[in-house]
Amino acid sequence: MTLLSRLEKIGSPADVKKLNTAELYALADEIRQKLIQVVSQNGGHLASNLGAVELTLALHKTFTTPKDAIVWDVGHQCYTHKMLTGRLSRIDTIRTEGGLSGFPKPYESEHDAFVAGHASTSISAALGLSEAKRLQGDEGYVVAVIGDGALTGGMAYEALNNSGKTPGNLIVILNDNEMSISKSVGSVANYLSDIRTKPAYYRFKDRLSNTLEHTPVVGKQVKEVLQNSKSRLKTMIYHTTFFEDWGFDYLGPIDGHDIDKLCAAMERAKRLARPVVIHVATQKGKGYSKAEENPGAYHGVPSFDLEKGNPDISLENSFSSAFGKSLVKLALKDSRICAITAAMKYATGLQFFKHKYPNRFYDVGIAEQHAVTFASGLATGGLLPVFAVYSTFLQRSFDQILHDTALQGAHVVFAIDRAGLVGQDGETHQGIYDVSLLTQVPGMQIFSPVNYRELSQCLRHCIYEIEGPCALRYPRGKEDESLPVSDTDLKKGYQLQKCGSDRLVVTYGRVFSQVLAATAEQPADILRLCRIWPVSDEMLDMMQQYDHLYLVEEGIRAGGVAATIAAALMERGYRGEVRIRAIDNGIVPQAAVERNFCQLGLDAASLTDFLRQ
Amino acid sequence: MTLLSRLEKIGSPADVKKLNTAELYALADEIRQKLIQVVSQNGGHLASNLGAVELTLALHKTFTTPKDAIVWDVGHQCYTHKMLTGRLSRIDTIRTEGGLSGFPKPYESEHDAFVAGHASTSISAALGLSEAKRLQGDEGYVVAVIGDGALTGGMAYEALNNSGKTPGNLIVILNDNEMSISKSVGSVANYLSDIRTKPAYYRFKDRLSNTLEHTPVVGKQVKEVLQNSKSRLKTMIYHTTFFEDWGFDYLGPIDGHDIDKLCAAMERAKRLARPVVIHVATQKGKGYSKAEENPGAYHGVPSFDLEKGNPDISLENSFSSAFGKSLVKLALKDSRICAITAAMKYATGLQFFKHKYPNRFYDVGIAEQHAVTFASGLATGGLLPVFAVYSTFLQRSFDQILHDTALQGAHVVFAIDRAGLVGQDGETHQGIYDVSLLTQVPGMQIFSPVNYRELSQCLRHCIYEIEGPCALRYPRGKEDESLPVSDTDLKKGYQLQKCGSDRLVVTYGRVFSQVLAATAEQPADILRLCRIWPVSDEMLDMMQQYDHLYLVEEGIRAGGVAATIAAALMERGYRGEVRIRAIDNGIVPQAAVERNFCQLGLDAASLTDFLRQ
Repeated sequence: MTLLSRLEKIGSPADVKKLNTAELYALADEIRQKLIQVVSQNGGHLASNLGAVELTLALHKTFTTPKDAIVWDVGHQCYTHKMLTGRLSRIDTIRTEGGLSGFPKPYESEHDAFVAGHASTSISAALGLSEAKRLQGDEGYVVAVIGDGALTGGMAYEALNNSGKTPGNLIVILNDNEMSISKSVGSVANYLSDIRTKPAYYRFKDRLSNTLEHTPVVGKQVKEVLQNSKSRLKTMIYHTTFFEDWGFDYLGPIDGHDIDKLCAAMERAKRLARPVVIHVATQKGKGYSKAEENPGAYHGVPSFDLEKGNPDISLENSFSSAFGKSLVKLALKDSRICAITAAMKYATGLQFFKHKYPNRFYDVGIAEQHAVTFASGLATGGLLPVFAVYSTFLQRSFDQILHDTALQGAHVVFAIDRAGLVGQDGETHQGIYDVSLLTQVPGMQIFSPVNYRELSQCLRHCIYEIEGPCALRYPRGKEDESLPVSDTDLKKGYQLQKCGSDRLVVTYGRVFSQVLAATAEQPADILRLCRIWPVSDEMLDMMQQYDHLYLVEEGIRAGGVAATIAAALMERGYRGEVRIRAIDNGIVPQAAVERNFCQLGLDAASLTDFLRQ
Repeated sequence: MTLLSRLEKIGSPADVKKLNTAELYALADEIRQKLIQVVSQNGGHLASNLGAVELTLALHKTFTTPKDAIVWDVGHQCYTHKMLTGRLSRIDTIRTEGGLSGFPKPYESEHDAFVAGHASTSISAALGLSEAKRLQGDEGYVVAVIGDGALTGGMAYEALNNSGKTPGNLIVILNDNEMSISKSVGSVANYLSDIRTKPAYYRFKDRLSNTLEHTPVVGKQVKEVLQNSKSRLKTMIYHTTFFEDWGFDYLGPIDGHDIDKLCAAMERAKRLARPVVIHVATQKGKGYSKAEENPGAYHGVPSFDLEKGNPDISLENSFSSAFGKSLVKLALKDSRICAITAAMKYATGLQFFKHKYPNRFYDVGIAEQHAVTFASGLATGGLLPVFAVYSTFLQRSFDQILHDTALQGAHVVFAIDRAGLVGQDGETHQGIYDVSLLTQVPGMQIFSPVNYRELSQCLRHCIYEIEGPCALRYPRGKEDESLPVSDTDLKKGYQLQKCGSDRLVVTYGRVFSQVLAATAEQPADILRLCRIWPVSDEMLDMMQQYDHLYLVEEGIRAGGVAATIAAALMERGYRGEVRIRAIDNGIVPQAAVERNFCQLGLDAASLTDFLRQ
């Protein structure tokens, strides 16, 4: 490993300000070395961080945190920012248990102005911080750094629509790398691409208006004449971009790897009296050739070999992949089946579908609200839509699931990936709320398959045997091949595994493996739910035959299946003993999933103890 | 009442097509008469319906439902559509129990293509229907009719971003009346206003390009030259509006009360090969002078006197008003208090605050997602934000409450209006999910005051005695002045009313009145929760002292407080009897609130029976 002599001298952002341009570029090189080393070791978001090195340096050269606030959208591009704000010595701990988070965390540093993780929130948060400064007479700028991918999320436009009239301390930096995780989609992406590829046109207006503004005309500047006229010419000259329609000044496009140009644009933005968008063109993966060539593959990666550069993101052996392949098989025989993703084509295993059936594959961008209502439209129009989405992002569309899917009984299948604990991404990404959300939705049925085979069966069942809204949920990663699972009757929706005990464990999904291991130590019958919602009378009848019930759930307790069962048993006058093991506090910090299981008492050893109680 | 001889002859939209322009205007007059009569009788959305009469006639003159689909955004402007599609004879039943819905309902008619109620969903739904037609080779156009107010909701932009590349059967009609309920807010509203007030500029481009397109230049049309050039001129000429940046063709602005012009624009849109936005300028309240003068007051109204024209929308005696006034009192002494509404200034009682403290009042438009994250930004910046929102619309912001408020412990106060059953608005607007949603959120505290005095105390408590996220929820309408309620210790959060019974009813909020009446017939002690979440050990201890528990909740059962209590008691080994009365099926149809109470077994008589069990 090369010595990082410059980087190690940066104790705080103040040290960045002392450097000249050449020194900043040298520092950028060291930062990239460190980024590649850390991410190859711990896994994480490589390409987005490599793309934002010069941008981050320019930010800390131009602005002064925490007096000025930087709000990172999504936040996975914040590693350089963390290194420059006193956290270099801990950067090797990033994304590990007890270590630095891979996302901004105000509890970690006063330089992290706002929490991040989900997309498209930064302008709203920045506007709030900006208004707080205004009302309290505080100095300082607020800068939102948002990727072009996050501009596919509607919330960003809600914020833009509200920002146009704020006083001038709000600056939005559009970090445009033409990517979110995959290629950005939709009209806005095309529009941005048009600006990037034809900067001359947009710059032309800039130059023209500059020239005109300084040309005197019979005692007045042309600028004044233009501003007071209602001439069409004026609008043609001054109307540059889309962002101006939202009430912003627009500066760009700027080369996002040219530190001087970045700093100049930021300084200019500071002086403008209105909110500003600085449009910055960056290259995702910049400085690591393998990531430059294939930025999608290096978006979020597990640890990998630096020399070979081979992060295993194939996900070949995963629930996601099994889902994707099963869906393709069904779609082969049924042209009504459509697939929808919200910017997660690869991660949800839908690349197979896209490849085979591009005509009925929809990547809608980071737009979970639209995805659900769009899917409901497809269903109402007679098709069979399947929306594959991470559990944590499904939270964005609760109202649409209720209002646009359930209220008219639209038959939309929700394929919920990353259900349950997610590990290193931590608090912001835990998939532990979907069950509690969906149990509220009228007519919803929820399935929780434990292996690929059952996933495939549940998928077919959801598409063909159910009317109305339904969901199947499965975790990140691989199946447990050792599970002794035979085919489940999905109309009944459960499997009972008996050993003649007066104790029954009721559980579902991934934690079933842990329960199974625990019952090897401490024998008990197991009722594994495959259809976890609704809970049938038959299931409850079965439970009532036992004296001791243990309800084990890898999800939030409030509104979960365990709590619902316990309440139902209470109403039924059940007189046995009921214990619940579920997640009481939804703030589950980053760690390996196995460690999260231990912390929450969901691992085999903890469950063995639990069964002894 | 005037005879409606023309209207009565319209058995189906086919009859509209037979009429000439003069006849259509005569029909429009009759429709307006009927609208005013029906709404004055049943209550409903008057101003928006009056504004959309000619637009609806033009739609049915030009398009043929159900082959063509019309998707109404929000849907409260659909009364004329209902009259024209075979439902005139039932229009007098609108918004009453068993009668026509005030919103589009596919189960009511094949002419209602998609459910509506919440804003900004129409383009997503229309795109889904349009893609379903494309994939199945069906003929027919899909038309989304969306107000300018709904363009403040981000979901609409997610849909626009995805629509730009669809084949040409998607038409978006922007019904621009400069209003949602109050005046529309934000940059887009300003932008639309600019187009409306300077149509000459936008039309100029249209004319210019038309002229140029038909001018031959050395064997080619100028059009061709322009289209193949990269000239700046081309962009200047062809780039007209914002909507074109989203990939749409733009037609407008069109006078929304000129039937011929509307039909001509729609016919032109049909012929275009790309998705089209038709920008239509209408006047909310058109044709009823009192509503024209004050469209906000006639947006949604209770029944009123036709002659006097005096719908009582003052809400003077209401929880909303009590909230608004309490907040003003607190804000008088504390400049950190800010108020936020999502386009519901009057309905949430915030007009007082806006009047007194415009500088820290924020109407963000129909943008609940932004509202929450913006509020979290204000809180993080040191202020005390209160977001007043209807329970049903809070559903839009679950992810933001979890991710942007709770995960960083931001102290945002949610003032949840229209909590519980809402009556005539029906299924789409029931406020019965907020409790189940919020109980999942880490650190959340929820209060449910039963009268104005307690509301005021809860508000102060939430602002000053709590750190982190908290909510107070209260119903539509007035307090029950007869309630014997003394001040509650809000740290303890309950009141116990004893009569020496071995039966205890646990309840909260509005239904407490019904419980009280029931216990007059069938004596029982009452534990009224004022802080309904979290449920404390002290509360549970108290419950365990009784042999019979009755948990009564005006909210969805799954994830509610009653189910949580029952589960907790089960775990504690409680051996008494527990019965729950809550809402099992969230699809609660329109009726007077009192009737909904009866249907759901939440009225005093039903509860008396319940206590006898």
